[in-house]
Amino acid sequence: MTVRIGVIGTGMIGQDHIRRLTHALAGARVVTVTDVDGARAEEVAAVLPVPARVVPTGRDVVTDPDVDAVLVASWGGSHEEYVIASIEAGKQVFCEKPLADTAAACRRIIDAETAAGRRLVQVGFMRRYDAGYRAMKAVVDSGRIGAPLIMHCAHRNPSVPGHYTRENAINDTAVHEVDIVRWLFDEEIAAVRVLVPRASRHAGELQDPLILVMETASGAIVDDEISVNIRYGYDIRGEIVGEDGTVALADTGPVVVRRDGTSAGQVPADWRERFARAYDVELQEWVDGVAAGVAPTGPGSWDGFAAQVVCDAGLVALTEGGGRVPVTLPERPDLYAKP
Amino acid sequence: MTVRIGVIGTGMIGQDHIRRLTHALAGARVVTVTDVDGARAEEVAAVLPVPARVVPTGRDVVTDPDVDAVLVASWGGSHEEYVIASIEAGKQVFCEKPLADTAAACRRIIDAETAAGRRLVQVGFMRRYDAGYRAMKAVVDSGRIGAPLIMHCAHRNPSVPGHYTRENAINDTAVHEVDIVRWLFDEEIAAVRVLVPRASRHAGELQDPLILVMETASGAIVDDEISVNIRYGYDIRGEIVGEDGTVALADTGPVVVRRDGTSAGQVPADWRERFARAYDVELQEWVDGVAAGVAPTGPGSWDGFAAQVVCDAGLVALTEGGGRVPVTLPERPDLYAKP
Amino acid sequence: MTVRIGVIGTGMIGQDHIRRLTHALAGARVVTVTDVDGARAEEVAAVLPVPARVVPTGRDVVTDPDVDAVLVASWGGSHEEYVIASIEAGKQVFCEKPLADTAAACRRIIDAETAAGRRLVQVGFMRRYDAGYRAMKAVVDSGRIGAPLIMHCAHRNPSVPGHYTRENAINDTAVHEVDIVRWLFDEEIAAVRVLVPRASRHAGELQDPLILVMETASGAIVDDEISVNIRYGYDIRGEIVGEDGTVALADTGPVVVRRDGTSAGQVPADWRERFARAYDVELQEWVDGVAAGVAPTGPGSWDGFAAQVVCDAGLVALTEGGGRVPVTLPERPDLYAKP
Amino acid sequence: MTVRIGVIGTGMIGQDHIRRLTHALAGARVVTVTDVDGARAEEVAAVLPVPARVVPTGRDVVTDPDVDAVLVASWGGSHEEYVIASIEAGKQVFCEKPLADTAAACRRIIDAETAAGRRLVQVGFMRRYDAGYRAMKAVVDSGRIGAPLIMHCAHRNPSVPGHYTRENAINDTAVHEVDIVRWLFDEEIAAVRVLVPRASRHAGELQDPLILVMETASGAIVDDEISVNIRYGYDIRGEIVGEDGTVALADTGPVVVRRDGTSAGQVPADWRERFARAYDVELQEWVDGVAAGVAPTGPGSWDGFAAQVVCDAGLVALTEGGGRVPVTLPERPDLYAKP
Repeated sequence: MTVRIGVIGTGMIGQDHIRRLTHALAGARVVTVTDVDGARAEEVAAVLPVPARVVPTGRDVVTDPDVDAVLVASWGGSHEEYVIASIEAGKQVFCEKPLADTAAACRRIIDAETAAGRRLVQVGFMRRYDAGYRAMKAVVDSGRIGAPLIMHCAHRNPSVPGHYTRENAINDTAVHEVDIVRWLFDEEIAAVRVLVPRASRHAGELQDPLILVMETASGAIVDDEISVNIRYGYDIRGEIVGEDGTVALADTGPVVVRRDGTSAGQVPADWRERFARAYDVELQEWVDGVAAGVAPTGPGSWDGFAAQVVCDAGLVALTEGGGRVPVTLPERPDLYAKP
Repeated sequence: MTVRIGVIGTGMIGQDHIRRLTHALAGARVVTVTDVDGARAEEVAAVLPVPARVVPTGRDVVTDPDVDAVLVASWGGSHEEYVIASIEAGKQVFCEKPLADTAAACRRIIDAETAAGRRLVQVGFMRRYDAGYRAMKAVVDSGRIGAPLIMHCAHRNPSVPGHYTRENAINDTAVHEVDIVRWLFDEEIAAVRVLVPRASRHAGELQDPLILVMETASGAIVDDEISVNIRYGYDIRGEIVGEDGTVALADTGPVVVRRDGTSAGQVPADWRERFARAYDVELQEWVDGVAAGVAPTGPGSWDGFAAQVVCDAGLVALTEGGGRVPVTLPERPDLYAKP
Repeated sequence: MTVRIGVIGTGMIGQDHIRRLTHALAGARVVTVTDVDGARAEEVAAVLPVPARVVPTGRDVVTDPDVDAVLVASWGGSHEEYVIASIEAGKQVFCEKPLADTAAACRRIIDAETAAGRRLVQVGFMRRYDAGYRAMKAVVDSGRIGAPLIMHCAHRNPSVPGHYTRENAINDTAVHEVDIVRWLFDEEIAAVRVLVPRASRHAGELQDPLILVMETASGAIVDDEISVNIRYGYDIRGEIVGEDGTVALADTGPVVVRRDGTSAGQVPADWRERFARAYDVELQEWVDGVAAGVAPTGPGSWDGFAAQVVCDAGLVALTEGGGRVPVTLPERPDLYAKP
Repeated sequence: MTVRIGVIGTGMIGQDHIRRLTHALAGARVVTVTDVDGARAEEVAAVLPVPARVVPTGRDVVTDPDVDAVLVASWGGSHEEYVIASIEAGKQVFCEKPLADTAAACRRIIDAETAAGRRLVQVGFMRRYDAGYRAMKAVVDSGRIGAPLIMHCAHRNPSVPGHYTRENAINDTAVHEVDIVRWLFDEEIAAVRVLVPRASRHAGELQDPLILVMETASGAIVDDEISVNIRYGYDIRGEIVGEDGTVALADTGPVVVRRDGTSAGQVPADWRERFARAYDVELQEWVDGVAAGVAPTGPGSWDGFAAQVVCDAGLVALTEGGGRVPVTLPERPDLYAKP
C-alpha cells in the first residue's frame, strides 16, 4: 500500500522532498536515492528511519524493481533522460520544474509519453496547490467577477544568490507565473513582452526589477513584476481583474502586531515559508494518485513544455526592449486534452 | 518505525483522526479500533488501506500488543477509564478534549500518571498548534509588546446542534479559550465571571451570546465572547493587549474579492476549515514523539485538569449573573513542572 | 449670513475651535473671546484676520449683542454658568464636553432649557460625526447584522499628562464611548462595572488599563478597554456584534508600507489626527444650523446629562472591584423626545 | 479678508465648487458667475446665501472689479481664453483640468504666464491633496523604501456615461495618474505605451479595459490599469515599488462588516465619495494662498501642459498597439523651476 519512491538528486530541493515524504506525508517511503555527489546521497539515505538504498545513477533508480515511482530533483539538464526513462519503465514520475531545460527536450518527453499512450509525468508547479491560488481559481470559475481580462502579479524575492542570472529571472522565477496564469485562465499564452525599469541598486549585473507582460490566447493581459532583491520579504501577489470585480491573493501573515505607530502583518521570509503547505499538498496528492494507480491530475508534460516555450519567448523579449514576441505552440496532443 | 495506533471511538472526530493518521500524516498506522457501535467500527476499519482489527472494548484496544499508542475519541464520560488504562499499560495516549468529564476524574488521571512516574498523556487542545496562536505566543514571548495585560477573544459559531446546552457553551466552546489563555499567558486562571447580554433571536433556550471573563493569577483579564448562532461563519478572534502594543490573530481568508461595492475576505465556514492544519500538526508532532520514544510536549493531564476546573467555575458563574468565582487549583505536581 | 461666534475659553481646545471656525469652515466668524487668562485671550484675538473683541468674562461674551451664538471651551466647572446664561439669552451654545462637571449641574441646564421651551445646547461629542461611527450606525440601523447584542470597544492613548487621574479615565476618556454607545444603540445605559487588570509598568498611580463594562437598557453589553499609556499610538476600536454579523471600525491609515518583513498600516499619533475631520463636520453642521435658525440636531443637554450620570456610576464602580452599579436616570423630558 | 471669487461655468463641477466655497470652506465668497446656459447661472446664483451677480461671459467674470480670483469650470475648449484673460488681469485663477484642450493651448498659457512674470495659475489635479497620495509621497521622499522603480496603478470606474469615448479614457481618466506619477516621482514622463486586453462585455465601443504604461525620465515604469465599467465601485489603487519595499494606498472603507461568510470593507461608489476631502483641501489651500497674496503652490500651468503632452502621446499609443511612444517636452521655463 505504501508507495516506494526513488529519488534522483539529493540536493536542497531533493532533500526537502525526502523529508516531506518521510516525515510529513502519508503513504510513501523513499527506498532508493542517487546523486551526482555519491557521498551526499549516502548521508541523506543513512538518516532515514528505514535507510534507503544508494545507487550510482538516475537510470538505476528508475530501473530498481523496488521503486514504484520516481521523483526527479536533479539539475534541469538531466531531467529529460530520467523522465523519459521513467516513462519507458512505465513508472509515474514527479519532476521538479523545469520539465527539461529546452523546449525541444520537453517535446521529446511529450513524444515519449504519447508513445506510451498514457500520462505518467507530473511537473512540480506547486502553486496550483496553494490555498490562495485555488480560492482565486474557484472565484474566477464561479463567474462571480465575470470574464477575467487582466491579471496583475508580483513575484518578489528578498535576494538571490550570486550565480543567479537574467535568464533565471525568466526560467526559474517568472516561470511560476507562466504556469499559474495558464492554469487560472485555462488557456495558452500567445505572446510576451518584457519591460525593463531602471535597476535597483541591489541589482548588480541583473535586470532587476523587470516586468514580464503576457498575452493569453483570448487576449487577456498579465503584467508580472519580477523583483528579486527587494529585501523586505518573499511576497507573491496576484489580482485577477474581471468584468465585474476582482479577486486577489490575501496577505498571509498569521498575526497583526500594533506597535510603534503601525499595525503590521508579517511577510513570509522565503518561498519555503510561503509555499510549504502547497508543496505538501502537491506531493500528497501525487502519492495518493500513484497508490491508487490513476494518472496524475496535476500539471503534466504539456504544461512543462508550454511553460518552457513561453519562457523561451520571454528570453527573446528580454533582449528586445519591449517588443511583442509571439509564442508559438504546436497543437495540443489528444493525450493532454482537457477533460 | 511506523507507530501502530489503536483508536477508541469511531464517531465523527475519531473518523477524522483515523483519516488524518492514514491519509495525511507520516509514520502512523491505525491497527486496532473499537466503538460502542460495533458495526460502525467495522465499517471504518474495513475501508482502511490495511484494514484495522476491530475489538469489543476500549480496554481491548489498550491491551492489544500490536498497539504502540492509543487515541481516545469516545464520549467524555469514558475517557477516564481508557486514559488510565493506557497509563497503566505504559502506552502513550492522545485523548480528545475533555481529558475527562469531571475535575475529579481528571485528578485521578493525574494521580495515575504521577504514580507511573512519567508523562504519557496528551490532550487534544489543537489550538496550540495553530499558526496564528503560535505566532501570537512568539510575539508575546519576544517582549515586543511588553507584559500582556488583557486579552480580547471571540469564539463565534454559525450555529450549534439542537442538543447543545448552556453547559456546552462553557465545557466545549469556551474551553478552547481557557486552554489557549493558560498557554499564551503561561499562568493559571484564578477567577471567572460570566456576563450575559440579551439573547440573540437565534438563541432558543441558550444563553447566547455570553461573555466569559477570566482573570489570570497575575491579574491579567481576558474577555471571551461566545456567540454560537452568529450565522455568518466560524470566526475565532483574539488580541492580546500588552504594555507597549498588541498582537491579534489575522484574518485567514486566502483571497480578497472586490465585488458589489465591497472588498471582502472569506470567513471560515466551520472549525474544520479553520483548524484543519492545526489538527494535522498536533497529531504529527504527537506521532513523531511516540516514534522517538519521548514524552509528549503538548498539553498534558495537568492542562486537561486545570481547564476542567476553570470550566466548573465558569458553570457556577453562569448561574451567578456577573459575580466573580474564584478558581482553586491544587499545587502543580512536579511531574508537570515547567521546563 | 455669517454666524458671529463668541468663544469662552482660549486654551488648547478653544484655540483649535477658533482656528477651525476661522480657517477651515464656512459661514462663521469669531467676533468676541474671553479667557481667565486675559493676556492669552488678547493674543488669540489679535492674530485673527479680523481681530476679535476681548471681553472680561464669559457672561460678557454671552450678552455681547454682536454675538449670535456661543462656544464654551472653558474648564468644566464653569460650563454650567455660561450654558445657562446662553439659554437665558436665547442664543445657541456649543459646549465642549462635559456639559457640566456634575450630574446636578447638567440637570439644572436641562431645567433651564426646558423652561426656555426650545433646544439651544449642543455638547461636543464629536465622535457622532466620525465617518467610521456614522457608517457603523448605518449598518446597525439597516438591520444587516440583526439586533445588536454586544459591543467591543478599545480606547487607547499613547500616553497621558502627569496630572491625569483615575477619574479622568472615566470622565474624560471613557465618556466618549459612553456617548457613542448611547447613540449607536439608541438607548440608555442601565448599569456599569469596572474590571481592573494588572497595571502596565507605565501606569504610575493610575489604574491603567481598565475595562468599563456597560449594560444598556435592553441588556446589550459593551466592554470598553481603556489603555492610556500604550505607547504605540492613538487607537480607537469598536465592533458591534449583532445576531447575524458584526460591524467594526476599519483601520484608518492612508497607506500600507511593506518593509523589513512587515506589511504595515499607520496608527494615528493622537486624537487630533484621528478625529480632526469629525471636529470639522461637527462644528460646520452646528454653524449651519445656527445660520438656518434651526435647533441643534447633534448631542444635546440630555446627552450630556446622561453621559455624566453614567460616568458617576463608573466612578463608583471603579472603587467597587467588578460589582454591578445601576445607572438611574429620570424620565426623559419631552423637549428631548426622539423624533 | 474674504476672497471674492468669480466662477466661470456652473455645470456639475462648477456647482460643486460653488457649494464647497460657500458651505464647506473658510474665507471665500462666490460673487460673480457665468455660464453658457444663462438660466442655469441665474439659478445657481440665486440660491447662494448672498446671491452672486450673473454676467454674460467668462471675460466679464475676469474683469469684474469685485472679483479677486477666478475659478474656471467651463468646458475644456474654453479654458485657454479665460485662463489667459485672468493672467492678463493679474488675477489668480484656479482651472479645472484640463488646463486646456491641446498642448499648444497649454503652451500659450505658459507663455502668457511667463510674460506676466509670476505664477497665477493652479490646475485642478486634486489627487495631490488626497491623504493617501500625500502619505505615499512622504514615504517615498523619506527614503524608507529606497529609490522608486515601479508603480502599479488601477483606475476603476463602475461605469461611464454613453458619450464617453476612448479619448476620454486617456484625457479624462488616465490623466489623473499622469499627474500623480509626475508628482510622486518628481520627474517627467518620457514615453508611453498602451496595452489593450480583450474587452469587457460592458465595454460597448470602448477599449475597456486598457493599460497605460508610462516610463519616467529616469526609467521608472508605471503600469496603469484603466477599467471604466467594472461595476463594483470606484476604486483607485496605487503601489510604488522601491528598492527596499513598497508603499500602497490603503483601502478607504470606514467599517468592516462580517456577514454571510465574508469580512468586507466598503469600496467608494464614485469619485465624489473617494476624493471629496481632497477637493476640499485643494480649494481651501488655494483660497488661503490667494488671501495671503502668495503664488499658488499646487499644480500649475507647467503641470497642466506636461500632462497634456503625455496624454497626446497616450492617444497616439492607443492606436499603435503596444509600441513605445516618446514624450517630448521643451525645457522647463525658469518660472516653473523646482524649489
